[in-house]
Amino acid sequence: MDATYRALCRHGYAALTMQDIADECGKSKAALHYHYESKQMLLESFLEFLLKRSEARFENIAGDDPAARLFNLVDEVLTPPSEGEDGPDAEFKTAMLEIKAQAPYEPVFREKLVQFDEHLTERIAVLVADGIEQGVFDVDDPETAAAFIKTFLNGAQMRFVATGTSLDETRVMLESYIRTELLADDADVSQEALA
Amino acid sequence: MDATYRALCRHGYAALTMQDIADECGKSKAALHYHYESKQMLLESFLEFLLKRSEARFENIAGDDPAARLFNLVDEVLTPPSEGEDGPDAEFKTAMLEIKAQAPYEPVFREKLVQFDEHLTERIAVLVADGIEQGVFDVDDPETAAAFIKTFLNGAQMRFVATGTSLDETRVMLESYIRTELLADDADVSQEALA
Repeated sequence: MDATYRALCRHGYAALTMQDIADECGKSKAALHYHYESKQMLLESFLEFLLKRSEARFENIAGDDPAARLFNLVDEVLTPPSEGEDGPDAEFKTAMLEIKAQAPYEPVFREKLVQFDEHLTERIAVLVADGIEQGVFDVDDPETAAAFIKTFLNGAQMRFVATGTSLDETRVMLESYIRTELLADDADVSQEALA
Repeated sequence: MDATYRALCRHGYAALTMQDIADECGKSKAALHYHYESKQMLLESFLEFLLKRSEARFENIAGDDPAARLFNLVDEVLTPPSEGEDGPDAEFKTAMLEIKAQAPYEPVFREKLVQFDEHLTERIAVLVADGIEQGVFDVDDPETAAAFIKTFLNGAQMRFVATGTSLDETRVMLESYIRTELLADDADVSQEALA
């Protein structure tokens, strides 16, 4: 899975071959084919691996209250690449957009991407619902708020890859939206969440 | 350009060859190469053609007032494919997402995509600014409102391609956002805009 990650960063999805992945893990192409019949099947396992990892990450988001946890979740999704605009993380975001563009042709990719989408939307909805219960959010419908935020997050990722729009810029807009539209007027929110 | 559109719908971007485009316009591949050295160069011209067309379209958006024009613009960008989820329009949206995923590798694609992004964002900003002047919108900063809406529009397009999320569903969310966040409380907006 690490070798697949590195190969995707180096070559992108379209140009990726089983040989590239074999090279990254120091195994023969034949050994790789023993476990995975095709590039599609390997990528399917890779998406499953990413899904499990992202589920674990988003279920254990830090924060003193639901608002702080929502801001931290937004931060995690929209963190700019650590090594400048061209670091491995930027390359990986690009590879993921390539894979998303293949979804209509590859039903197994579509299936995993729907699970990703539903899981993150559901996590956001739970944080919003928790926030309503604890009086920090004032929202009618947590599901709609979550779908709205999820859609915006995807737009930020797409603009980053397609046009180089800074993730910092779109993250600030979303944080401002959450502050003005979701936070209750008298919310007693930790300083961390409003920093 | 029509042949390129049809070939993109039929084959997607990754699998597209000059032969596919030649086949669609009933010309030889040699004739096509006479005008365009490579698939990349033909696609660059195609993006330029789309840009000019979309500029003309968004500069002549119908509507009695800026709010009606903004709702009509959102409608145009998020119109579901005319022939069901798998019609040529859906295929074209997928091909465009493939091209966006190539932007980091193809500077000429990136350049055109930035022009698209800037033009649409600017058109939205102008409509919001016009709306403020005419008292239908109550917004502090038209540029930020426009960037926010543009990002959401891209997210809606990405979720449509990657996960099949209905454009109707995301359009309704954005319209509701514009109504509650942008419209002035006492706005006298045409019925068309609020329908």
